[in-house]
Amino acid sequence: MTQFIGTSDICALLRRTGIEPFLTGLAGSIEADFRRWESFEKAARLASHSCNGVIELMPASDGELYAMKFVNGHPGNTAAGKLTVTAFGVLADVATGYPVLVSEMTILTALRTAATSAVAARALSRGDSRVLALIGAGAQSEFQALAFKALLGVEEVRVFDIDSEAMDKFCLNLAASGLRIRRAGSVAEAVDGADIVTTCTADKTRAYVLTPDLVVAGMHLNAIGGDCPGKTELHPDIVARAAVYTEYTPQTRIEGEIQQLPADFAVTELWQVLAGKAAGRSSADEVTLFDSVGFAIEDFSTLRYVRDLSRAEIRDIDLIPDLDDPKDLFGLLAAQSQRLAPRLGDAPAPGDPTSANASTDVSLLPA
Amino acid sequence: MTQFIGTSDICALLRRTGIEPFLTGLAGSIEADFRRWESFEKAARLASHSCNGVIELMPASDGELYAMKFVNGHPGNTAAGKLTVTAFGVLADVATGYPVLVSEMTILTALRTAATSAVAARALSRGDSRVLALIGAGAQSEFQALAFKALLGVEEVRVFDIDSEAMDKFCLNLAASGLRIRRAGSVAEAVDGADIVTTCTADKTRAYVLTPDLVVAGMHLNAIGGDCPGKTELHPDIVARAAVYTEYTPQTRIEGEIQQLPADFAVTELWQVLAGKAAGRSSADEVTLFDSVGFAIEDFSTLRYVRDLSRAEIRDIDLIPDLDDPKDLFGLLAAQSQRLAPRLGDAPAPGDPTSANASTDVSLLPA
Repeated sequence: MTQFIGTSDICALLRRTGIEPFLTGLAGSIEADFRRWESFEKAARLASHSCNGVIELMPASDGELYAMKFVNGHPGNTAAGKLTVTAFGVLADVATGYPVLVSEMTILTALRTAATSAVAARALSRGDSRVLALIGAGAQSEFQALAFKALLGVEEVRVFDIDSEAMDKFCLNLAASGLRIRRAGSVAEAVDGADIVTTCTADKTRAYVLTPDLVVAGMHLNAIGGDCPGKTELHPDIVARAAVYTEYTPQTRIEGEIQQLPADFAVTELWQVLAGKAAGRSSADEVTLFDSVGFAIEDFSTLRYVRDLSRAEIRDIDLIPDLDDPKDLFGLLAAQSQRLAPRLGDAPAPGDPTSANASTDVSLLPA
Repeated sequence: MTQFIGTSDICALLRRTGIEPFLTGLAGSIEADFRRWESFEKAARLASHSCNGVIELMPASDGELYAMKFVNGHPGNTAAGKLTVTAFGVLADVATGYPVLVSEMTILTALRTAATSAVAARALSRGDSRVLALIGAGAQSEFQALAFKALLGVEEVRVFDIDSEAMDKFCLNLAASGLRIRRAGSVAEAVDGADIVTTCTADKTRAYVLTPDLVVAGMHLNAIGGDCPGKTELHPDIVARAAVYTEYTPQTRIEGEIQQLPADFAVTELWQVLAGKAAGRSSADEVTLFDSVGFAIEDFSTLRYVRDLSRAEIRDIDLIPDLDDPKDLFGLLAAQSQRLAPRLGDAPAPGDPTSANASTDVSLLPA
């Protein structure tokens, strides 16, 4: 049997562990895998674009486990009462190719994106960062806030969204989080005085959510909403002047903020910083930018982490046949039904034109 | 909720419809989609190779529905009691990106491969073909035999496998099929007098399952076991001399029998024949070869066909969250648990280091 973790199971798991401890553990899992980056087989995700959005397949393998995430991005979905991003993931055993786990990843993608953001910020932001500005109060926003609280000790979150109901929701959801929540009237008001700025908006356009005048020395920028060709959030001058860190650069050149810049614009991959192979922030005044589009290794880490953590939250589904004789796939059908392979002498099903031995059978019937 | 079709559901569906009618309908679905080939977004599958085998992702979209199959190929699996090929598939709605169906595809892959083989043979083989030679009596073999019976009126199947137990299984499974089954002592004996030869072996090597001396004028060759770089079944001279038909040529050049030939070796895509845009067999003496590696559109057709055909065989799974407010993903967690976002005034969980308002709460407790 294949293991299955549904949305209700993830909710039960998070209920058992608590969200912040879960995020802390998940960040550790992601960071450990980023440190062994070179041991993974990596590929830019396989995207299928349509006028409404994109459907992507994101595989990664370390030679023992293979992970694959199916994820969509449809900015217009919320107007129809649907999520912008939904996802599910699969873990498979590389030695046999068998899928061993299917899991919901809509909730997990929000958690892993937040955990990855916090891993990057922990490595790249100023150590005294306590104030986070969040531009965008959509489905990912609370997870971002809690990950920065849990991993960096952020104390205050300033939020802005053009959708005031989304801000209401954000403030209500985090009212008892222990964070000081400040509702801003504009992007400028949210960003003013912030140590870290996360942009998590969903428009499928070249947007200037942040403009150069709002960015001050020492800020760490965490740009996660620009993750698709033609979908960016930052003014190109911000990107050009920042120290830019990426996940998997071949993918980020196509999908990230740096798609606005020449293909030879210098970037550093985050894993290099985490593995001690490249420098992070060079001074308290530098502006650092994590140009995050999401990478398959993060999903690999997440699926493995969740599988290891789950107990009663895992169910079984019959996704793959379990055979006594692996060459006898057909026997699985026959074993469950005599009708599938009618025996000589059986009366054919009425009007069954596929029973080539029908005439033989009919001759056995009384005339 | 997302729909789910497990292996037991597919068995129940086939029990209700019968295998041959199912194959006939499936072939119609595949042929209809091949005729509108140009309306699909196509990509060579995304393969992850390891020393034991390969894991592949196969997406296809017609702009309304998106299909994706996860499939492995591990020839050594049977020695460990496991299937060489396992698979599952997903259908998603292109307009929203939501996955709408997850289905087992191990059984379905055997059925769709057989149906596609028969669709190709119906278009390419001599109309008077009645004798099929099957080289390889593994998991796919019975499905091949039944598809050729149902779609071409094949009456006799000659089978050979180096594994005599696999042949026992094949003969037993099809004893009451209405086909004349002949157990051959060698490839040559199986092929002698056959109108159509299907090779469905699993070795991950450059094998010469068929050699040129065994191929006579007028034969149709259906080569389905060579489907991976370095994995072929036919002597290259057979391929070079035949009229070769492919599914999606960019993929077949890498994975099919024609990987043994120069990259400019002329081939015709099967869909062109089905759509009346290219000629099929030119004479009763021509040797035709369907160099089949399996293509994502076949899986697309299969998933849609099965979804349309299924009734009670479809279950629901909670793969994707269903939210009142699509921006309130976090609320899904909070709704299921008070512990996730402790309210002010709640006592913190013992030893919970993540509750930043713990000190506030403690001060509310009796001294």
